[in-house]
Amino acid sequence: MFLAFFAILSFADEGMWLPEQLPEIGPAWAERGLEIDPETLADPLQAPLGAIVSLGFCSASFVSPDGLIATNHHCVEGFLQYNSSAEANRHRDGYLATSRDEELPVGPAGRLWVVEKIEDVTDAMLARVRPRMKDSRRNARLEEAEKRLIADCEMQENRRCRVTAYDGGGTFRLITSVEIKDVRLVYAPPMSVGQFGGEIDNWMWPRQSGDFALLRAYVSPEGRAVPHAENNEPFRPPHWLRVNPEGASPESFVMIAGYPGRTRRHARARSLRWMAEDYLPLQRDVLQEIIAILDGHAGGDPEAAARLGAPISRLKNALKNSDGLLAGLARGGLLEAKQAREDEVLAWVDADRARARRWRASLDAQDELIAREQDDALKELVLTWAGRSADLLGVTTQAVRWAQNRPKPDIQREIGYQDRDLERTRQRFEAMERTLHLPSDRDVFEAILTRYRALPDGGRIAALDAFIDDQGGVSETIELLYADPSLAKTEARLALLDLELEDLRASDDPWVQLALAIEIWAGPRREARKADAGAHQRLDPVWFDALNLWTREQGRVLYQDANSTLRLTLGHVEGYSPEDGLFALPQTTVAGLLAKRGPVPFDLPERVVAHAEGSRQSRFVDPALGDVPVNFLTTLDITGGNSGSAVLDGQGRLVGLAFDGNWESIASDWVFLPGLTRAICVDVRYLGWVLDGTPGSDALLKELGLHEDPS
Amino acid sequence: MFLAFFAILSFADEGMWLPEQLPEIGPAWAERGLEIDPETLADPLQAPLGAIVSLGFCSASFVSPDGLIATNHHCVEGFLQYNSSAEANRHRDGYLATSRDEELPVGPAGRLWVVEKIEDVTDAMLARVRPRMKDSRRNARLEEAEKRLIADCEMQENRRCRVTAYDGGGTFRLITSVEIKDVRLVYAPPMSVGQFGGEIDNWMWPRQSGDFALLRAYVSPEGRAVPHAENNEPFRPPHWLRVNPEGASPESFVMIAGYPGRTRRHARARSLRWMAEDYLPLQRDVLQEIIAILDGHAGGDPEAAARLGAPISRLKNALKNSDGLLAGLARGGLLEAKQAREDEVLAWVDADRARARRWRASLDAQDELIAREQDDALKELVLTWAGRSADLLGVTTQAVRWAQNRPKPDIQREIGYQDRDLERTRQRFEAMERTLHLPSDRDVFEAILTRYRALPDGGRIAALDAFIDDQGGVSETIELLYADPSLAKTEARLALLDLELEDLRASDDPWVQLALAIEIWAGPRREARKADAGAHQRLDPVWFDALNLWTREQGRVLYQDANSTLRLTLGHVEGYSPEDGLFALPQTTVAGLLAKRGPVPFDLPERVVAHAEGSRQSRFVDPALGDVPVNFLTTLDITGGNSGSAVLDGQGRLVGLAFDGNWESIASDWVFLPGLTRAICVDVRYLGWVLDGTPGSDALLKELGLHEDPS
Repeated sequence: MFLAFFAILSFADEGMWLPEQLPEIGPAWAERGLEIDPETLADPLQAPLGAIVSLGFCSASFVSPDGLIATNHHCVEGFLQYNSSAEANRHRDGYLATSRDEELPVGPAGRLWVVEKIEDVTDAMLARVRPRMKDSRRNARLEEAEKRLIADCEMQENRRCRVTAYDGGGTFRLITSVEIKDVRLVYAPPMSVGQFGGEIDNWMWPRQSGDFALLRAYVSPEGRAVPHAENNEPFRPPHWLRVNPEGASPESFVMIAGYPGRTRRHARARSLRWMAEDYLPLQRDVLQEIIAILDGHAGGDPEAAARLGAPISRLKNALKNSDGLLAGLARGGLLEAKQAREDEVLAWVDADRARARRWRASLDAQDELIAREQDDALKELVLTWAGRSADLLGVTTQAVRWAQNRPKPDIQREIGYQDRDLERTRQRFEAMERTLHLPSDRDVFEAILTRYRALPDGGRIAALDAFIDDQGGVSETIELLYADPSLAKTEARLALLDLELEDLRASDDPWVQLALAIEIWAGPRREARKADAGAHQRLDPVWFDALNLWTREQGRVLYQDANSTLRLTLGHVEGYSPEDGLFALPQTTVAGLLAKRGPVPFDLPERVVAHAEGSRQSRFVDPALGDVPVNFLTTLDITGGNSGSAVLDGQGRLVGLAFDGNWESIASDWVFLPGLTRAICVDVRYLGWVLDGTPGSDALLKELGLHEDPS
Repeated sequence: MFLAFFAILSFADEGMWLPEQLPEIGPAWAERGLEIDPETLADPLQAPLGAIVSLGFCSASFVSPDGLIATNHHCVEGFLQYNSSAEANRHRDGYLATSRDEELPVGPAGRLWVVEKIEDVTDAMLARVRPRMKDSRRNARLEEAEKRLIADCEMQENRRCRVTAYDGGGTFRLITSVEIKDVRLVYAPPMSVGQFGGEIDNWMWPRQSGDFALLRAYVSPEGRAVPHAENNEPFRPPHWLRVNPEGASPESFVMIAGYPGRTRRHARARSLRWMAEDYLPLQRDVLQEIIAILDGHAGGDPEAAARLGAPISRLKNALKNSDGLLAGLARGGLLEAKQAREDEVLAWVDADRARARRWRASLDAQDELIAREQDDALKELVLTWAGRSADLLGVTTQAVRWAQNRPKPDIQREIGYQDRDLERTRQRFEAMERTLHLPSDRDVFEAILTRYRALPDGGRIAALDAFIDDQGGVSETIELLYADPSLAKTEARLALLDLELEDLRASDDPWVQLALAIEIWAGPRREARKADAGAHQRLDPVWFDALNLWTREQGRVLYQDANSTLRLTLGHVEGYSPEDGLFALPQTTVAGLLAKRGPVPFDLPERVVAHAEGSRQSRFVDPALGDVPVNFLTTLDITGGNSGSAVLDGQGRLVGLAFDGNWESIASDWVFLPGLTRAICVDVRYLGWVLDGTPGSDALLKELGLHEDPS
């Protein structure tokens, strides 16, 4: 904590590198343990990076020539749920296929993307963009170009294509992947092993989670990526990782290859400050008020408690995360250091007349744009919560937007209002039967509207004010809305989805009228936001260029913010000091797992406890530790999307899987603190040890190369 | 945690040694850093041990030839309170006497005992004790002998004398101390420095407490220990400690000299098991019920909250401590290891016919005695809480006992019922005006009586049952007791203290009648307990002798349980692993103190914060740490009473003051775990650094030898 200020000035181990950057940054790592030629790492389609794949929401990697895939347990939870029944609760008990025949299809959600081709499509994207066109038009042109590129690309059979932006949005690439649709479950430990510690230990160290699972990719006998079929055969991946049965030890070099989702490391200082000083504190305030109201209702009334249990725990979890982020951003000296760096870059821009002429106006415009967006977002935050918290307002708002979109050709509709979305909307409207709780809904909405009315003029909406004034004030409005609303009935909600816009306008349901009043303002706001997006597409690349060039002049290399494409991050197995007088050791052990055993989520299957009694004699013992290692800490730079990522040693062999960050890294989407930010990984030796105690795992251990004593 | 089982088998660093044991155990410590000749340490009246003194409730030490005394801040809190007023809140702000004139008398509670003579009085104590006398008589004879020895000894002017038992009660010593009555406050830091972290950090590590204070002893110009007088002069102690300005560093040898109160390390296994399995769980149950009732009352009613605030936090603190103790005793394998050791000793006794004949019957009798006492204590636990929780029952019970004792000569009365105690009793009866809260008192007492009535026959009292039956049951009894009780008025309570036993018997106040009913049982129970004490005096020395001889045959030396006499404990500055994956570093720093700053109890005076900005340049910086050290962990063996104890280096110089144990040591009165039990100390360098930032401290820093750069 007290190191924060110093830490941010260092760049050590920070960075989610594009493969192509390895020849530049790799040589310095050779001294620190990287043994593979950085040129080899520069090609994402060659080994070892060619073995890294995506499950969409998680990262994964091929670990055998027969298409065996390693990822996290928490990444396959849905697949386990899909394969669970009253007779076989695989979600709870885990699963081991003792032969290929027993490998279980994971259902339609199981998709694996194996990147096949990466092309620069900057010219195609910018072909119809002109320097001085209106921002809304720029945004529309870019969207059109992207849709066209993807549509053309996906003409190829079984290919999935994406356009991704780099350099702050100044360049674009088209990424073509083979989409494997027959994914099967090979192995997952019991839930109590895979997610030992559950929500309580989420983001926490010390940790003893067996967060690993194994899948296998299947294709047709001809090698085509077809949906599940009996006669499909294991996919033969072009590349796969070897497993190093010696795992990862303190101070050893490691790297993570995976698909980090999104970071904001290069955001302007204003964004960081606003999050810490304005947005998160206000959001906490609103969240706390809502939680207090719901807790009050759930406290006295079992019926309310049943309906409100899940929303309350969701909101509390959001509050915990947002508080963690706030605490992280509020860390001593962080905002100042961020501002100081930005000031330095801007001074450097101003110091050269050509640079200043080329960039300064855009940088100022970007800063103003951000300031205005922040202003809008803060004003709208209370309204945002109105829609999220008043269930019936959510229903009528959606009905209005369905009515707006339905007349258009499907392809031109807004995302979320296409034919493919209708069934899910109906399901949500139906599910409300079990969750709608009018008394608490009413109290929350009254609190939100009261907050709204206390906003200064600029923060309010004429149409909504008029609606409230018409009823005579907030309490009268609430009275009207909640006096036996017809939409409390499921059929009435579902009926809304068939109505045209004029039907809705003619309705005398106060919820419908409220949604229409808000839409008078919301429609134009959505359009304005598209224009803002266009302005960002124009201005953000300028900031990136300036930052990039300045970094280079400092003798360093700038990495790009994460964008769900393949990245490599390099570092070491290393502990850290979470606070004065305390040190987080870099490894945990099976003995520690047993010592922490207790009630759910710290329970363990008896079989694992019995297996643990001999753990100190196991071939998976870490000699220095005298026990089987479970989890380890690394200085590696990861974020959401990296779950399931392979942790590699200096030779590119698999030594573990990344599955979480420590509590101090909760703000790491915004800022990386070398002394504190740690990625939590599970050691392959723990996978080996747990498998070793699972009857019927011999073939699998052999396929993984974990079947005999490594010494 | 997971090391517990292995740890208890080791004896490293455990032991509160009598000075006379040092020649035997000291030589082995020479290799580990002890530089003083163990023969020197064997004499408690020579330097350095001759500098160690007692404040009664705390330990302390002379640190200058002018009678300057170092102890803990929390040991002088009462003295600060005594010297506080609305104009000068020294309890909050601390105090520094910039010259001797400004040193403040600490009031009548300030007493310092400097040991002058220690004699073996075993023969005198046992002169009238016969092997086969009744246990109650044995107890009475020992009490008489003790009173006589003390009375004779205290014929000397200004001397305070104590008889202390050793060897399980087989031998006795008479300790004569000079009682210094003019104690003055020289320096105490502000509360926020001295007890940084407050109750939250109590028992916790990491810790950053400046728990130090300085006093000075004064005597008459002729050197006599007289009460405070203007012309008194600083006492010239026979010995004082030199301060080592380099403080204590990781792995360095340290020892603590002080007055530990009481430990139960050599208790029979049955005692430990009973605490863990019976007594503490039942007590927790009762405590939780009472707390829930009081919380309920305080929750809805500000008046109740004001009256119940202090009792609730006292009870919660008791619950926290008792839960900690329970968790400590329930640690894996502890009870089994204790039992295994006892079994080993008993088997060794049985293995030799002479030993078995001499000891076995007594050891069995001791075990049976303990079992019966445990049985009684468990039965009486609910009743104990009746007296503690129903304020008016407490009042009438005391009135009854005053009436019983008043007719006797003062010297023959029970402790607590002598003339000197009357004023305090009256004050307590008056203070009840501000704390008595009948609605919650009623609910608690009803819960206790309900619990009592559910006890099996052997656990209930005929007279109390009859009283309840007479009213028609528990709720009717409660109804009677709380229907406008006259004792709710202060005058009525005070009037009770003048009544004779026959007046009380004639009273128709139901509370008085209830107390008299209970006393029918309680009086004989007090007598029976004296007989049990006599039985312990007969049997406990046998167990100690057996344990002592067995330990010797194992090639080790047995230390004695603490008995509020001077002890020395030897060890090192060393961290520990509180759990798998975490390590408690052995030192904290000023940077860590600042990082932890926040709302009370983590606030700091601005002056300290400003001073801290230059801490890394201070002469008190630990070179290895790069900052001023605050607290440190040691493997030393301490307990209550050790607060304020001097931490000495290998040459006997002062390097710190002990002030707390870590959470894992909360059960250490019963069991010492070398891998986990740690004493928390404050470094003299932090004292020096804080003083250095306090204007006017030059003379004091010089007196302490902390005035110039040690390097």
